[in-house]
Amino acid sequence: MVIGMREGCQKGEVALVISALRQRGLEPRIISPGPQVVLGVVEEISQALAEELTAQISRLAGVEEINRFGTSWKLVSRNFRAQTTSIKLGRGSIGGREVVVMAGPCAVESRQGYLELAQRLAPLGAGVLRGGAFKPRTSPYSFRGLGEEGLKIMAEAREITGLPIVTEVLRASDVELVARYADVLQIGTRNMQNFALLEAVGEVDKPVLLKRGLMATIKELLLSAEYILARGNWQVILCERGVRTFETETRNTLDISAVPLLKQHTHLPVLVDPSHAAGKRELVPALARAAVAAGADAVMVEVHADPERAFSDGRQSLTPEAFADMMADLKKVAAALGRGLGAAA
Amino acid sequence: MVIGMREGCQKGEVALVISALRQRGLEPRIISPGPQVVLGVVEEISQALAEELTAQISRLAGVEEINRFGTSWKLVSRNFRAQTTSIKLGRGSIGGREVVVMAGPCAVESRQGYLELAQRLAPLGAGVLRGGAFKPRTSPYSFRGLGEEGLKIMAEAREITGLPIVTEVLRASDVELVARYADVLQIGTRNMQNFALLEAVGEVDKPVLLKRGLMATIKELLLSAEYILARGNWQVILCERGVRTFETETRNTLDISAVPLLKQHTHLPVLVDPSHAAGKRELVPALARAAVAAGADAVMVEVHADPERAFSDGRQSLTPEAFADMMADLKKVAAALGRGLGAAA
Amino acid sequence: MVIGMREGCQKGEVALVISALRQRGLEPRIISPGPQVVLGVVEEISQALAEELTAQISRLAGVEEINRFGTSWKLVSRNFRAQTTSIKLGRGSIGGREVVVMAGPCAVESRQGYLELAQRLAPLGAGVLRGGAFKPRTSPYSFRGLGEEGLKIMAEAREITGLPIVTEVLRASDVELVARYADVLQIGTRNMQNFALLEAVGEVDKPVLLKRGLMATIKELLLSAEYILARGNWQVILCERGVRTFETETRNTLDISAVPLLKQHTHLPVLVDPSHAAGKRELVPALARAAVAAGADAVMVEVHADPERAFSDGRQSLTPEAFADMMADLKKVAAALGRGLGAAA
Amino acid sequence: MVIGMREGCQKGEVALVISALRQRGLEPRIISPGPQVVLGVVEEISQALAEELTAQISRLAGVEEINRFGTSWKLVSRNFRAQTTSIKLGRGSIGGREVVVMAGPCAVESRQGYLELAQRLAPLGAGVLRGGAFKPRTSPYSFRGLGEEGLKIMAEAREITGLPIVTEVLRASDVELVARYADVLQIGTRNMQNFALLEAVGEVDKPVLLKRGLMATIKELLLSAEYILARGNWQVILCERGVRTFETETRNTLDISAVPLLKQHTHLPVLVDPSHAAGKRELVPALARAAVAAGADAVMVEVHADPERAFSDGRQSLTPEAFADMMADLKKVAAALGRGLGAAA
Repeated sequence: MVIGMREGCQKGEVALVISALRQRGLEPRIISPGPQVVLGVVEEISQALAEELTAQISRLAGVEEINRFGTSWKLVSRNFRAQTTSIKLGRGSIGGREVVVMAGPCAVESRQGYLELAQRLAPLGAGVLRGGAFKPRTSPYSFRGLGEEGLKIMAEAREITGLPIVTEVLRASDVELVARYADVLQIGTRNMQNFALLEAVGEVDKPVLLKRGLMATIKELLLSAEYILARGNWQVILCERGVRTFETETRNTLDISAVPLLKQHTHLPVLVDPSHAAGKRELVPALARAAVAAGADAVMVEVHADPERAFSDGRQSLTPEAFADMMADLKKVAAALGRGLGAAA
Repeated sequence: MVIGMREGCQKGEVALVISALRQRGLEPRIISPGPQVVLGVVEEISQALAEELTAQISRLAGVEEINRFGTSWKLVSRNFRAQTTSIKLGRGSIGGREVVVMAGPCAVESRQGYLELAQRLAPLGAGVLRGGAFKPRTSPYSFRGLGEEGLKIMAEAREITGLPIVTEVLRASDVELVARYADVLQIGTRNMQNFALLEAVGEVDKPVLLKRGLMATIKELLLSAEYILARGNWQVILCERGVRTFETETRNTLDISAVPLLKQHTHLPVLVDPSHAAGKRELVPALARAAVAAGADAVMVEVHADPERAFSDGRQSLTPEAFADMMADLKKVAAALGRGLGAAA
Repeated sequence: MVIGMREGCQKGEVALVISALRQRGLEPRIISPGPQVVLGVVEEISQALAEELTAQISRLAGVEEINRFGTSWKLVSRNFRAQTTSIKLGRGSIGGREVVVMAGPCAVESRQGYLELAQRLAPLGAGVLRGGAFKPRTSPYSFRGLGEEGLKIMAEAREITGLPIVTEVLRASDVELVARYADVLQIGTRNMQNFALLEAVGEVDKPVLLKRGLMATIKELLLSAEYILARGNWQVILCERGVRTFETETRNTLDISAVPLLKQHTHLPVLVDPSHAAGKRELVPALARAAVAAGADAVMVEVHADPERAFSDGRQSLTPEAFADMMADLKKVAAALGRGLGAAA
Repeated sequence: MVIGMREGCQKGEVALVISALRQRGLEPRIISPGPQVVLGVVEEISQALAEELTAQISRLAGVEEINRFGTSWKLVSRNFRAQTTSIKLGRGSIGGREVVVMAGPCAVESRQGYLELAQRLAPLGAGVLRGGAFKPRTSPYSFRGLGEEGLKIMAEAREITGLPIVTEVLRASDVELVARYADVLQIGTRNMQNFALLEAVGEVDKPVLLKRGLMATIKELLLSAEYILARGNWQVILCERGVRTFETETRNTLDISAVPLLKQHTHLPVLVDPSHAAGKRELVPALARAAVAAGADAVMVEVHADPERAFSDGRQSLTPEAFADMMADLKKVAAALGRGLGAAA
């Protein structure tokens, strides 16, 4: 059960609602402290009690609306918030009219290389710069990124280009460090159900890009987002990046249906990562176009100045030239559907 | 090995090539009788023999090109035919500049209902009418279609609207009957590896719409098409209609990557069926837009005048109103990418 | 609804039941002509009508029991027949106390090779000889088997060894031919939903070995079996042979849970094919032991005198020596669970 | 590259080997400090350098063997250690002749209930007690376990029964706490690629039970184990617990082939969890028998005194009575294959 107070209501009115709920043994949480105060009761409650409570609370001063949830996710539900959440980022936002394209290499490999690439991508319309400083690797012996050094290089690229930066955080104990540099914290595929990490980013005031697990259902993705919102951070971008199937021609199978499905179920903005889905650069532009056509709010692609020499994921990285071509097409598709190709910058 | 003769070459020139191959113990087949005669040698041959043969045959009169195939599929390969095959249908074609939309109910349920629906769909831009007369059903006790009666109703709808019709054929022994009425023969998902049926439609002079199996890889789909081409019928349209995965929110998972992948591997035109993939009508328009954006040559959707009362697949059928809205959007997306939304009629 | 008549009831009594059903617009079918006559009504009927009919028919002479089905499969259900169906084969049976092992090469490659192998397998405890005469092949250019010549060789092996033979039938039009030679007709994985073929073997008086499709659910397998029973052939053996998943270390993923699940849902006997599931001979003995331990009624393995030279599936074929070792272990596992390792011969 | 020193070699001999490797720019790690000192070089090295190093080092005193790895996993490989690793636990071990059965409820729900159940399971042959104190939950609103209170209850059960206890650890920051109570640390399915957690348990001197991810290949499971061994903890038990497929009749699909595959690839012992795979208690005994028949070293099942009232996973929990029946059968299957059903106690 979620209770939305009127904007500008008084503290005493909120306190009365909380008190009424506590008398029933419930422990309401302040889901959003403002401008609209939102209280959530996440305990399971019976139909009878729900009706009684609704009748009682709706009479209290300052109460605007009361919702019960039919699905197992609550705060992320479009039943709770009808309008798509727009997340401010740089000079723009994600979740609004403009489709934002995030671009950059899989891993930050060197200062010079990253800064040069960033300066090529910015004028081509990239809205956010991506790059890995801490890399999750299936094998303990693979390159794991430059760490804080990589974060500093990305921050420098932001200074130069004015573009916000997104990078992955792997451990709860690293959240504070990464949040000091990054504009968006990415939770990777393997960590979608690392609940300790979800809770850690739930307590930070930074947007979170939450990637779907390789074999996670839509429902599980929404419940993982729920972990973050339940801790008070509502700035979550959901990312479809391909799921694991029997097909071996592609690295993963991009579940394009996730885009309209997520738009139906949740108010959170939706991003598509065609690079990890396809695993082959020649498929990326077609999948990016499909993502925009299906209604995605953002797209994230890997670009490398010299893909054949990338430390990781070179096979799926676009060249800057191919990126420019892709952007031209995405602009046309977005326009056809009444959207722009915006910079978050 | 495939040998393409010059257009207008003489019969004697073809005979000499065949004779040269037979002397090596090979049994060439006439893959295409004209206008360009194409001979195929599908036996596995060693690298050495291939080189020897190429040297010898390329000197013969009338020989234009000789190709060896690197992949396990041969005739369907883009290495063999660089240009997309354009299949004539009605007054238009599939595989050209125009994207064609096929529409209609899952099953033909009654004469009046089908004719009325057909007349609503034609002015909305449908290029081909679909409908099931013989229905494959998982359970032996489900409605299996009207049979020949259904074919007659569809033929009547063609008379009235001028639109070509596509319908499924389930058995090798029915091919002749269905081909008498239908303009396009559909091979359903469950029959993608029913080799007897593939061979039967391979001997008919009608376009074939070959649906990917629920469980089939891209490679297997191409090899099933190869069965049809190998029998002499080159008019094959490949259909992506969703594969089976762990996700249960959708009926199947539309493998949108199949579109650019197939376009890369084969010269055959590619169609997407978002209705069977999604299983929910509210997702169909977004998936149809994604298909066109990804480069599909055609889209096939289920439409029913009263989906809630459909005998089968009502949950995934669009209303005529939703179909009209979808068509307006598809037209814009196609135009953004330099294509039109054409009628095959 | 299924109506079981008393054994030895009179024809007139059956006729009266049929007549009562027809008066309600139903078309009962004779599911089993004897010794116990069984009538089936497969039309969907309302709860109210079902109760009325049950009341009326149960009063008629000769009626022993009336069942309604809760699941979508009917005749195959254990609700209909509580005892496991035992299928007579050679001097033994499948579905009884004895676990039967079927063995032989993927394809019959030559007369001499097949007869020699058969004579090695018989004394090692093989209960049924397998071998492919008509091979389904993903590519139209692969070896498709010796055809009728292969069937004759298998029949000769039966003469010599006394063992029954099982082989695949690919087309409805071949059923009569194959049934002339084979003791068991195998429906392959790709044809599990080839309904024309299912109906054709449903009209033959020979046991059918029905393989689960690569990506078919348990429910779909049962409904495909239902097609065969609904045509009057109740001698169906269900085969689990691995399903398609993301795992690439094995050819397919053996779904061992299918064994207890099928035993729970149906009265039909269950066979496991570990060779096609594993795709690697070194895994086959462990999987065969698991199958027997899980309760399978039969196991089918590929054996080849010289696996490295097999035309197909050599990688997964056991040598005769490895087969002998496996049989020794299977015998112990079967005995531990109160079963024997029987010859069907 | 892994260098095994002779048991009882001198420290100076080890230092010389390390020094030789450092001169080539490599950073060897002490993989095992004794009794046999093992050094590992995990950097990728060229074929040429490997040969040169092998020649040079094999001449040094104290060096017993040098191995290069053909696969991407190294320390877990059977190429490195031919004999199955036997992990001491209680008065027995896992990985030896005896098959060990771990049993207990999904979650520790109350002190009295847990202690009573433990005392019923011990005399029935359970070798290890399981129970969840920290529960990973897909939804943030589900019961997450009693925490340290649960650990204390489990420790009390160990006092009473003499059986070792296994429980899950969810966060790197909890490893120390859980290791203070538990005999075996379990890494759950969702955390198989939580590399921070893998490294944390890699630094503890307690056996680790590593569950395969829902979506993980065999190779990925082995590489996750490699993370733990690379930190110095070689006591890892690998757990197959079902993978996610399209089949919905079972909660997951038990990949029984994983047992022989893992036994082939690695020296680590293998455990099967049929409860989470099946999700239905009636299937558990058959799957447990299959696991033992396929060669598993251990089996873990959920048991609850009153499954219908369990807080979680009741549907898949055996009653103590069903557990007793299962144990009787497992004993017979194990004996048939020359193994016992041992207590780790």
